[in-house]
Amino acid sequence: MAVGTSSDPEARPAPAPKATVARLALYLRELDRLVRDQRETVSSQQLARALQLSAAQVRKDLALFGQFGSRGRGYQVHELRAALREVIGTNRCWHAALIGVGNLGRALLRYKGFVQRGFEIVALFDDAPDLLGKRFGDLAVLPMAELYATVAERHIDLAILAVPAEAAEGVARQVVEAGITGILSFSPTPLVVPKTVSVVSVDLALHLEQLAFQVNQSRT
Amino acid sequence: MAVGTSSDPEARPAPAPKATVARLALYLRELDRLVRDQRETVSSQQLARALQLSAAQVRKDLALFGQFGSRGRGYQVHELRAALREVIGTNRCWHAALIGVGNLGRALLRYKGFVQRGFEIVALFDDAPDLLGKRFGDLAVLPMAELYATVAERHIDLAILAVPAEAAEGVARQVVEAGITGILSFSPTPLVVPKTVSVVSVDLALHLEQLAFQVNQSRT
Repeated sequence: MAVGTSSDPEARPAPAPKATVARLALYLRELDRLVRDQRETVSSQQLARALQLSAAQVRKDLALFGQFGSRGRGYQVHELRAALREVIGTNRCWHAALIGVGNLGRALLRYKGFVQRGFEIVALFDDAPDLLGKRFGDLAVLPMAELYATVAERHIDLAILAVPAEAAEGVARQVVEAGITGILSFSPTPLVVPKTVSVVSVDLALHLEQLAFQVNQSRT
Repeated sequence: MAVGTSSDPEARPAPAPKATVARLALYLRELDRLVRDQRETVSSQQLARALQLSAAQVRKDLALFGQFGSRGRGYQVHELRAALREVIGTNRCWHAALIGVGNLGRALLRYKGFVQRGFEIVALFDDAPDLLGKRFGDLAVLPMAELYATVAERHIDLAILAVPAEAAEGVARQVVEAGITGILSFSPTPLVVPKTVSVVSVDLALHLEQLAFQVNQSRT
């Protein structure tokens, strides 16, 4: 299918390509399901079917992180899940600051999936006068000026940015200055941050495009 | 890297694997950027670098949808973008119904990225008594009972589900009965729908896991 691969400088072994990273969490979801179904082992073919990948791709992905399987017997479900959790980092709890407590921020606060997977929102920030001091559950909204001190106090690892597009850049700068090295951004504008800081952007229109494509395909 | 590929039944040419579908919209983003920068051509290597894929992967992905490039000269940016838009379906406008006008729904209503990429929210549905009839911009909130008639009237293609987890299943059933064949779901519970209906789920915790992984990697 490919025209040629000779000039194909695929970097290995580190860092893992972005597409692999995105798949790791999907493997973890599938392994969670297998554990619930009390399955002991799983083959690369089975994982491939569940994730709609090729078996070769599955073996290649998982090999990047160590030797999990044995030929012919497949992967040990529990062992692989524990190893993936360690690689991803969800074998421990992550503390997140939610910045921006508007409609999106409030929706994220209520989202149950975060805690289930080891992410806890431990602080809220918003400089809107009508929000300052307002309580949501156990947390009161703090001014951005308290970000720096709060990051240390509450052991905050990640920031979730749910601010208007025009504010994102400035807020990201404050977040970086406060020593946070991971940002989940819902802003459609790309953020410029130092190389030591990781950014994952949730592009909502991208998901709609994927949906449009699938609908398009099933019509033809 | 892979143990072997002989038993690797990679389905081709249709339907496109899910991972490819997810990448198509990313190619489109990059092509949009190239058009803005007034670039005429792009090589598979350049696309590969921008998307952190291998060049072979890029050629393979794009070959699934036709013969866009010519060896040595690279891809024509405008031509490839037009073709990808047609494949994805964003060469026309899609009408969406937003179901659930709580915090998340309101955040989605304000999200500017949808219209920019050809998606228009043309109807709002929510059965909450305090929301019925309430106006957001040009649109008034309608009861779910009017979904069926409104889908035909306003030529609705897609539904965006921003309802509580416990309501998602029932709402999805009504959406399918109303003849909508594409659902974007923000519910953490998987939806059971007929095969003719496409569902794309936005799993917010998945994005946080990707971020945790990247932070983890950069620390070690």
